[in-house]
Amino acid sequence: MTTIRAGIYGASGYAGLDLVDIISQHPNIEPVFGTSNIYAGEAIPNSDLVFVPPDSVSLDNVDVIFLALPHKAAAGMAKKGVEAGVKVVDLSADLRINSPEVYEKYYDTVHPHPELLPVIYGLPEINREQIKGIDVVATPGCYPTATLLGLYPLLQCDAVQPNLPIVVDAKCGVTGAGRKPSLTTHFAEVYSNLSPYKTGRAHRHIGEIEQEAHKINNSIGPIVFSPHLLPVDRGLMSSIYVTLNDSMTSDKVYDLYCSIYGDEPMVDVLPPGKYATLKQVVKTNKGAISITPVLDNYVHITSVIDNLRKGTSGQAIQNTNLMFGFEETLGLL
Amino acid sequence: MTTIRAGIYGASGYAGLDLVDIISQHPNIEPVFGTSNIYAGEAIPNSDLVFVPPDSVSLDNVDVIFLALPHKAAAGMAKKGVEAGVKVVDLSADLRINSPEVYEKYYDTVHPHPELLPVIYGLPEINREQIKGIDVVATPGCYPTATLLGLYPLLQCDAVQPNLPIVVDAKCGVTGAGRKPSLTTHFAEVYSNLSPYKTGRAHRHIGEIEQEAHKINNSIGPIVFSPHLLPVDRGLMSSIYVTLNDSMTSDKVYDLYCSIYGDEPMVDVLPPGKYATLKQVVKTNKGAISITPVLDNYVHITSVIDNLRKGTSGQAIQNTNLMFGFEETLGLL
Amino acid sequence: MTTIRAGIYGASGYAGLDLVDIISQHPNIEPVFGTSNIYAGEAIPNSDLVFVPPDSVSLDNVDVIFLALPHKAAAGMAKKGVEAGVKVVDLSADLRINSPEVYEKYYDTVHPHPELLPVIYGLPEINREQIKGIDVVATPGCYPTATLLGLYPLLQCDAVQPNLPIVVDAKCGVTGAGRKPSLTTHFAEVYSNLSPYKTGRAHRHIGEIEQEAHKINNSIGPIVFSPHLLPVDRGLMSSIYVTLNDSMTSDKVYDLYCSIYGDEPMVDVLPPGKYATLKQVVKTNKGAISITPVLDNYVHITSVIDNLRKGTSGQAIQNTNLMFGFEETLGLL
Amino acid sequence: MTTIRAGIYGASGYAGLDLVDIISQHPNIEPVFGTSNIYAGEAIPNSDLVFVPPDSVSLDNVDVIFLALPHKAAAGMAKKGVEAGVKVVDLSADLRINSPEVYEKYYDTVHPHPELLPVIYGLPEINREQIKGIDVVATPGCYPTATLLGLYPLLQCDAVQPNLPIVVDAKCGVTGAGRKPSLTTHFAEVYSNLSPYKTGRAHRHIGEIEQEAHKINNSIGPIVFSPHLLPVDRGLMSSIYVTLNDSMTSDKVYDLYCSIYGDEPMVDVLPPGKYATLKQVVKTNKGAISITPVLDNYVHITSVIDNLRKGTSGQAIQNTNLMFGFEETLGLL
Repeated sequence: MTTIRAGIYGASGYAGLDLVDIISQHPNIEPVFGTSNIYAGEAIPNSDLVFVPPDSVSLDNVDVIFLALPHKAAAGMAKKGVEAGVKVVDLSADLRINSPEVYEKYYDTVHPHPELLPVIYGLPEINREQIKGIDVVATPGCYPTATLLGLYPLLQCDAVQPNLPIVVDAKCGVTGAGRKPSLTTHFAEVYSNLSPYKTGRAHRHIGEIEQEAHKINNSIGPIVFSPHLLPVDRGLMSSIYVTLNDSMTSDKVYDLYCSIYGDEPMVDVLPPGKYATLKQVVKTNKGAISITPVLDNYVHITSVIDNLRKGTSGQAIQNTNLMFGFEETLGLL
Repeated sequence: MTTIRAGIYGASGYAGLDLVDIISQHPNIEPVFGTSNIYAGEAIPNSDLVFVPPDSVSLDNVDVIFLALPHKAAAGMAKKGVEAGVKVVDLSADLRINSPEVYEKYYDTVHPHPELLPVIYGLPEINREQIKGIDVVATPGCYPTATLLGLYPLLQCDAVQPNLPIVVDAKCGVTGAGRKPSLTTHFAEVYSNLSPYKTGRAHRHIGEIEQEAHKINNSIGPIVFSPHLLPVDRGLMSSIYVTLNDSMTSDKVYDLYCSIYGDEPMVDVLPPGKYATLKQVVKTNKGAISITPVLDNYVHITSVIDNLRKGTSGQAIQNTNLMFGFEETLGLL
Repeated sequence: MTTIRAGIYGASGYAGLDLVDIISQHPNIEPVFGTSNIYAGEAIPNSDLVFVPPDSVSLDNVDVIFLALPHKAAAGMAKKGVEAGVKVVDLSADLRINSPEVYEKYYDTVHPHPELLPVIYGLPEINREQIKGIDVVATPGCYPTATLLGLYPLLQCDAVQPNLPIVVDAKCGVTGAGRKPSLTTHFAEVYSNLSPYKTGRAHRHIGEIEQEAHKINNSIGPIVFSPHLLPVDRGLMSSIYVTLNDSMTSDKVYDLYCSIYGDEPMVDVLPPGKYATLKQVVKTNKGAISITPVLDNYVHITSVIDNLRKGTSGQAIQNTNLMFGFEETLGLL
Repeated sequence: MTTIRAGIYGASGYAGLDLVDIISQHPNIEPVFGTSNIYAGEAIPNSDLVFVPPDSVSLDNVDVIFLALPHKAAAGMAKKGVEAGVKVVDLSADLRINSPEVYEKYYDTVHPHPELLPVIYGLPEINREQIKGIDVVATPGCYPTATLLGLYPLLQCDAVQPNLPIVVDAKCGVTGAGRKPSLTTHFAEVYSNLSPYKTGRAHRHIGEIEQEAHKINNSIGPIVFSPHLLPVDRGLMSSIYVTLNDSMTSDKVYDLYCSIYGDEPMVDVLPPGKYATLKQVVKTNKGAISITPVLDNYVHITSVIDNLRKGTSGQAIQNTNLMFGFEETLGLL
């Protein structure tokens, strides 16, 4: 098994830093460079590298590039990577939405490189076979990962009551808001607080959640998605409330999830009576799901991940393993 | 205006301590004793008193007793207070449920004094007129306060779609779990964590939420109530998701709440675009509510309180003010 | 007793916000304006005012101005206040250092208005008589307040061994670093962390600590002052380690502190065996001190305050009360 | 290289849980059992085992036992281990103090097995050669580890001024207080707080700090040791203040530390201008040290560790590696 050489763009953000940390434990990925404008010249933690400016690096000596960049910036680098013949693992939103029109609706800007679309959505538990061996992958957002993992078995077996809203009350730690300082992420504003933001139908992640959910099952009702900023550094919980249709009763949902996720190495379904909590997944690359039957036709699902791991960088490496033919969990357990 | 003399049972718990703190700022309530078995002999913070054992005090010199006691224990003291002719402000669950049978269902024990039932439910924004001048009041639980305040205007004007579940995804700080040490409240278990517990239909507070909701509007569907333990010390958020019936559209809900709560001194309705957060209410005796129209017939309501203030002790004093004919907000703003 | 009209410059910072909050509970101070460039037009919490730009206000209708401004900016406003005949309560560092040369040494900039110096140092427990009735006061910094209160009785009775260093290991919550966003105050950088900064002899507050300490006792050795950023929002602890001279033994220090602080309304000396902790003072305007005899000639003193209250805004109001002839604790207990 | 079989006593405490977690990543240690009375029958996280009662296990199939037990309980098991011919890694205080009399002084109880004393003190950076191949090791306490690592180079080269106190202002997260629930570790008591405890000369860890320090250099003055409970779950900082003797100046201390720790795999000495912080070491098995020259003859040293890793369980494995002839850092980096 060969070692692949990786270039990391945006290595000084929280996703980038976690990516380097994971790669440092991966036996078959060698980091070659990590870019940062702000921190250029400083040592990259968990590596022997120093941050370098993005325009100082070449794609000649890498096999794969990771794009932990803001949207808009990522697409341009993805284009260069494709042209240079290196594999591209995008962690931004640029390649997640299949249609430039829908992208423009949610991101309020013209897509910089629509010719790259569509790209396979890198959620291995749903799209594993399509991810194997591909050259470009769109790593999902953190909220969509937890939400889609929580809903997938019900969507897959067509057990959701059509037309009625699916409620997703979500909570995420502050690293989900990025490393750039702002009043929103100031310690004294967040500490001891809990804040909803962009609730209902206003958050951008609804675009990719509904896009991917509808591919599996296009008869479901609208996703009502209300995120909250949690006073912790990392961890994400999607609390999902679903009305079942006549094909399913809530007491059978646990068995359904076990049958679908039983062999999944990166998703744990908790036994009845146990709840998924942040601590179970923080600093791991796995998700955990717990299920509470509420009424005969109503179920409450808790889906948790580390927003920077299974929600971003851990999943990026899971995809990388599939793209290069490595064991899917290599370096992740 | 006369000063009333107050005895506080269970003064060393978190609710009791906050009660003493509020009373210390109240111009017309004089604390006469505060009981505690564990802390007997120690100074009571924010007062000139020391904790005394409950069996060492007499009701002869008090006008009102506050019962910040565990359920079962409170009812017995309430009985004694009634017999002694002092007013009783119960902060426990014992007097909240109108029917002994329903109490037994939710608390898994025979009601110790069913002859005391029913007692007026002390949520002034709903039952103000009934609370004025009464002798015994049942102060609501923290989750029911936030949830009922968040739902009340919709219930009152009959705007909720019948039969469909109302989702209440709730989050509360650790003081909500009481001061008795346990692994659940151990710092290292809670810190950086978020944990659901007793979700769906399992939590005791559903009993009083549905009892009071049905008094206003008995055509609503079941309450789906999922509480979570937040890694903060105080503060409570009920995130409420409601399907509206044909009499209402979501864009009119804000005006409805303003019309019903506009003159309420202890409830703030936030303007469109602002969200209710814990920080706005922690260490205050007020609640705050924000409203997000989601779909034409679907609305997301965020209702926040300090679980120990508007959720317990602040509300107890608000009731006390009404019971003794004081200005309702005396000592609370 | 007349009500005074107050203008607050820098009302949107953490000190300014706390100042407005305290004033809202003060019976004899009426806030007239609060300035902010960034938040101009928004409501000022705990008041009926909106933030206004600083150049839009006049000093014609105020009796006192509070300067919760950055150093350099404050001196200019202080000058204008003096010229307009209003009293000036400066919360910045500009008026604390008596000599422009020493100011330049610690702040690395020429003092903008040396003609204002020296100004009375507004620590009432030490300088009460001098503060009464004056027109301009320099409110001490948060670290100097806790440190000087902790040392004062030993300095006052000349009980400190000369020449040997006095160790001050200090810890402060994040509001001490101001409200302007930076990576230093980013939630994810501070949470779960503890960081020393500018330790030894590097922090600016050494200037005013030694200036005021030497006025009382100029034979003491150097202050070794090591601050740390605590992962809490507010609260400050100075842990002070002092070698006593032959005039004192450590078992008598508690009595000394009781004799000096026994009548102080804003400083509590804790009984032997009790420790001063942040919780005892956060959100109060008081300090607390505990004393541990370590060796016959060695003592450990813990001095705690809320950095925004007794450490800044509460103390500013304590000074204001003295300057206007009000009861010193008015609005503060 | 053979795999050794390990039995873990006290596996459900915080030290025990971290030990199992570290062992799960160690290529040459196989966990055979983990004991717990309270959690018997439940799954042990990060392993395939379930907790078993301590009296249900045999020493026949293990090569080493780890004692993550309370003091007094540990010594008895150590005795049994010695008699059974298995290696013993004690994480309790029972084997750290060389003399039963000194043990009794600090632990206020007769030593249960004085015949086991003295045992090598398992701080590899100081006692590496003595630890190699031994059968019983006493793993140091968390405060002593950070403090001794911070002082060792100065002690070793005899650079400390005799007679004057060495000040150690220490801070530790809540896992340092163990997992047994108590009011001290209740979330709502610790959150937003900072509390000194057993300051000066009262904490038990002074016994082993001075014992080991005096072995290296018996002319130093008394250790003044003031621990504080930090509102974080893990991490420990010893802030050390030392007067140097004439053989050393503060500007040479950094070079001294580099020369002594330069080849140490588990201790990082930070370059001038950088400070050791909790985040640098939490969840790692390493310590970090930063040095600030304060005066010519005075230095401030910050020494940080994860109290459960380099402070307990990580160090236990470092010792185990030395005892069994493995690479010292195996499974720890």
